[in-house]
Amino acid sequence: MLKQSPLAPENAPKLAPVNGVSIATMNSGIRYKGRDDVMLMVFDKGTVMAGVVTKSKTRSAPVEHCVSALKGGGHARALIVNAGNANAFTGRAGDLVVKETVKAATAAIGCRQKDVYVSSTGVIGEPIRPGAIPSCVTKLVKKLKPTGWDKAAAAIMTTDTFVKVATATTTIGGKSVIINGIVKGSGMIAPDMATMLGYIATDAAIPQSILQSLLSRAVDKSFNCITVDSDTSTSDTVLLAATGKAGNILPKSANDPVLRDFKNALLEICHDLAQQVVRDGEGATKFITVQVTGATSSGAAKTIGLAIANSPLVKTAIAGEDANWGRIVMAVGKSGARAERDRLRIWIGGVEITAKGMVVKGYDEAPVAKHMQGREIDIKVDIGLGRGSSTVWTCDLTHGYIEINADYRS
Amino acid sequence: MLKQSPLAPENAPKLAPVNGVSIATMNSGIRYKGRDDVMLMVFDKGTVMAGVVTKSKTRSAPVEHCVSALKGGGHARALIVNAGNANAFTGRAGDLVVKETVKAATAAIGCRQKDVYVSSTGVIGEPIRPGAIPSCVTKLVKKLKPTGWDKAAAAIMTTDTFVKVATATTTIGGKSVIINGIVKGSGMIAPDMATMLGYIATDAAIPQSILQSLLSRAVDKSFNCITVDSDTSTSDTVLLAATGKAGNILPKSANDPVLRDFKNALLEICHDLAQQVVRDGEGATKFITVQVTGATSSGAAKTIGLAIANSPLVKTAIAGEDANWGRIVMAVGKSGARAERDRLRIWIGGVEITAKGMVVKGYDEAPVAKHMQGREIDIKVDIGLGRGSSTVWTCDLTHGYIEINADYRS
Repeated sequence: MLKQSPLAPENAPKLAPVNGVSIATMNSGIRYKGRDDVMLMVFDKGTVMAGVVTKSKTRSAPVEHCVSALKGGGHARALIVNAGNANAFTGRAGDLVVKETVKAATAAIGCRQKDVYVSSTGVIGEPIRPGAIPSCVTKLVKKLKPTGWDKAAAAIMTTDTFVKVATATTTIGGKSVIINGIVKGSGMIAPDMATMLGYIATDAAIPQSILQSLLSRAVDKSFNCITVDSDTSTSDTVLLAATGKAGNILPKSANDPVLRDFKNALLEICHDLAQQVVRDGEGATKFITVQVTGATSSGAAKTIGLAIANSPLVKTAIAGEDANWGRIVMAVGKSGARAERDRLRIWIGGVEITAKGMVVKGYDEAPVAKHMQGREIDIKVDIGLGRGSSTVWTCDLTHGYIEINADYRS
Repeated sequence: MLKQSPLAPENAPKLAPVNGVSIATMNSGIRYKGRDDVMLMVFDKGTVMAGVVTKSKTRSAPVEHCVSALKGGGHARALIVNAGNANAFTGRAGDLVVKETVKAATAAIGCRQKDVYVSSTGVIGEPIRPGAIPSCVTKLVKKLKPTGWDKAAAAIMTTDTFVKVATATTTIGGKSVIINGIVKGSGMIAPDMATMLGYIATDAAIPQSILQSLLSRAVDKSFNCITVDSDTSTSDTVLLAATGKAGNILPKSANDPVLRDFKNALLEICHDLAQQVVRDGEGATKFITVQVTGATSSGAAKTIGLAIANSPLVKTAIAGEDANWGRIVMAVGKSGARAERDRLRIWIGGVEITAKGMVVKGYDEAPVAKHMQGREIDIKVDIGLGRGSSTVWTCDLTHGYIEINADYRS
């Protein structure tokens, strides 16, 4: 059992039920003992689903299934997730496990195959016992309850050291709606795709194509802006289910003003969940915010931010509480995005360190050194060339990361 | 003082003089005590120089100077290198240090400014004392000798734990020529540019434009195929000087058959030096060769090879002697290059592990586990889509890397 991350939030919020969603969890016997590791979420008829998955070229069988389910109209009745085995790179045998799981769900719930979503997370390449998950589905259906979001969040954990949940209430056209979200992830975390497993549900009524557009935009500014180790999982999936039970007026497009508050609430949930993943980054002791402004475009700003956030030398310097800003200069330089030495400005903890291509006159390292000793590290970089900006989040690189990953599988 | 890397070669070769090259080293007082940290190499008239430098957008003042010297005709009379301060991101003050260094050399040797090359390696962003290096140059000129390649290699070290040299003799059109090379580097090592500082000299007579083309090709297959931590230095420079003293017939082009043996010898020297950098990778305990075949192009193969070689999860698994090949699947998937699950084949230590998108039947991990306990790890991946191939070299990611980098500067 891993020690809880020192960056864990003090209190996890309590999640109220989402009208139209019921939940059950249990132990599958696949890998873990003494904890639930499989989760079933059942959605009432009329629920639509949006999703974003990994861009990996070796994505897992469950991810392939989710992609085709989303293409098949984006309706949803069931979601089954197991932890401990990713069912990735398991060939046709792995495809068959997904097929049998879906079949068990359609039989137990009475729905179409394309209304069932499946995710698996854990070791890659280990064949999964064919009947293990399908047999759970049959049992889980009998245990469904409207409550249990926290248990669902716990059941999907692998090397996570704390449960990651978020909730918000907002309105659409005067009607109150709720958004709940859960996520797992702490290693093999890299951006530019949905990161790790995240499940969000709302009782709002939103057409599927609009829901998909809202999710894609929110993911791009949240899950796609975090990195722990630059490694991209074969299993990354974020799904957003909308049951429609709130009875709000239907938005006409993703830009409909009626969605303004909902969009903010959804982005907040995604930010919250994504940042929790970073706070549980393997071995993390510092939560790092990298804000880039003045780049030639927001894409360039993100490229620079990620170059800083993924640099092992920047991350180890922060682990050592060393205000070694020269490594930030290095990371900006290697990013590939446009930058000019004499326009680059760097702040750590709000203290300006460089201007005109070198350290500022009379730079006093004392307040920066003090900032480096805290748990929340703020880096700001201004490129001085344009108006592109982006913020990314990461954690430090410590002995803990090596410990966890040098012997996670064995 | 860092402990010597367990991957250090047992015996460094003795380097004979290169006709037309003389060398001197001393202590500059800039950073290190009790060791030489500045090196002067003087070339006889008629020497031409080729060079490849970092693609960093925040490259150092000395690198900028080398670029303009190479553009100025590529003749060379002097090379000055210091260790301990990179003179990078030091603004106009840094440019001035380079200018004064060059001036001191031109005065002492009697040559043009564009015939002087300068490199600096060490901490980024720390202003360098203006007179420190120029005053050394004046003293070093009086100490010049044809011998001292080993001392030059030692003088340019920073976190290196062993001296890195290589030598070869070959022939051009029946005339014997010698190639000597030295290199430094162990962290902030990433490919797709010349990596860290490397200096090669030969007595061969080769026109500058041909020399440049030979160097670029050799670097692309050697220094550009190594990575320690995916971080790219602001100071990377590889220079190749040809004094012409061997009196060989002049080659007519880079493809002249008379150069066949010389090209092989040059590539061998570059491979040897590049691999020594990896063997001295910060905290390294395993030397890893990643061979990729069957990709859609050699560029795609290199992209896949580097994705594997840069993956923190692959590197920590190897540090833990864990044959966690699922992480290799993950790295192939995230590389962005074309790949198909069911065509991908993976070998570790010559043992075939996967075929048809999953683990091979009856896979016995015992011989692979034994291979993982050795110092030299061989990973082979066949993409099964084309004929592109590439080999890259890296090392494992260990507690040693964190230790060295969490407090190198302070």
